[in-house]
Amino acid sequence: MVYKALKKVSFLKGLVQKDIGQILSIAKHKKFKAGEIIFHKSEIGNHFFIVKSGKIKIFTFLGPEKKKTFAFLSRGDMFGEMSLLGGKTRSASAQAIENTELLVISKKNFRDLIMSNPDFTFKLLNTVVERLNKANKEIESMLFHNILGRLADSIIELSKNNHSTPVCLKIDQNELAECVGTTRVPVCRAINILKRSKTIEYKRGELKIMDMQRLKSIAGSGNN
Amino acid sequence: MVYKALKKVSFLKGLVQKDIGQILSIAKHKKFKAGEIIFHKSEIGNHFFIVKSGKIKIFTFLGPEKKKTFAFLSRGDMFGEMSLLGGKTRSASAQAIENTELLVISKKNFRDLIMSNPDFTFKLLNTVVERLNKANKEIESMLFHNILGRLADSIIELSKNNHSTPVCLKIDQNELAECVGTTRVPVCRAINILKRSKTIEYKRGELKIMDMQRLKSIAGSGNN
Repeated sequence: MVYKALKKVSFLKGLVQKDIGQILSIAKHKKFKAGEIIFHKSEIGNHFFIVKSGKIKIFTFLGPEKKKTFAFLSRGDMFGEMSLLGGKTRSASAQAIENTELLVISKKNFRDLIMSNPDFTFKLLNTVVERLNKANKEIESMLFHNILGRLADSIIELSKNNHSTPVCLKIDQNELAECVGTTRVPVCRAINILKRSKTIEYKRGELKIMDMQRLKSIAGSGNN
Repeated sequence: MVYKALKKVSFLKGLVQKDIGQILSIAKHKKFKAGEIIFHKSEIGNHFFIVKSGKIKIFTFLGPEKKKTFAFLSRGDMFGEMSLLGGKTRSASAQAIENTELLVISKKNFRDLIMSNPDFTFKLLNTVVERLNKANKEIESMLFHNILGRLADSIIELSKNNHSTPVCLKIDQNELAECVGTTRVPVCRAINILKRSKTIEYKRGELKIMDMQRLKSIAGSGNN
């Protein structure tokens, strides 16, 4: 059942049963409650993680009241590889934002997996490249845009795996501010501009994209 | 001789002769003149590159007069892997800024190399993770800083492989502006602030770091 659950999901999609079996045989299962921190930025990293169920936020503090969210991760996504490869310390913090179950793989087993399983490593490489691509686009977007454009970028990014019509996201203003990497007041102002132009509807933490074309044109070239 | 030259350099350091031999056996050698474009952003990517000699700039246009430089690459560095893995199109442009010789590997051979040579793939993974780490730090820095802080960040980044005392970089104002991702006027203003505080000296395209500690404190937490 775990195999079936894992096979459907992004990071492990395409791996054959033998490969997933190998991963399961070396992983421990660990549960985290909503709100619990999995690791803090700057800690030494000793484990690699795959999300079995639940939701994870990868973020960093920009100041006492300002956070930047790099990613929301869900079933089948992986994280924690960076400090096991490049630097030794965690480059960001990870927090469970729902009750979450993780597959936890030790540093040694992770390295053995990389050296012995080219399909796994190819997947891992693809995922890291995708994240680098996203980070570079975000740098471009930040150099190009004001907060309104970056908010539009973030909403489009958040809507990517959402197939409802119109796209409907459950996200509060603080979470949106953290995706943009700003505070609540400027993001609130930008939300109101998008509402007034009927690009989005937003109430009680529910954001509906009413005019995707306009949203994309506000986001600009960063999302081509 | 090529083997010796390649063995010393960053991306291939640590690979054994057999691995480098495999790379050389599937690579073509190609020369580019200073100023020549190797590929444009948004083109379909069909090749992976290793710098044999010379210097490469990876950049994107932010507008008709505004560029962002993501990296300067020299002997032994690799590039072009992103569109062979994640997306299909080049995420940035690459230009020779000196007369340059490259090892060029086709997409098919690159994929075969990944699947057959775990040491190569481990190196590649490490390099991509290092770039992702740098990109994430740059995002933090941009959210944290004004242009002065980002200029300080860029100068520190550029000085990393420079072992002269004091550190002395040959770089003109346009190149500095492109590293920060802004235009010449604001970067010129920031340079003057650093000069007046005796943090740097700068004349005729030669930048000397006179007070690294102060430069780091201006750059702030992004470089810890």
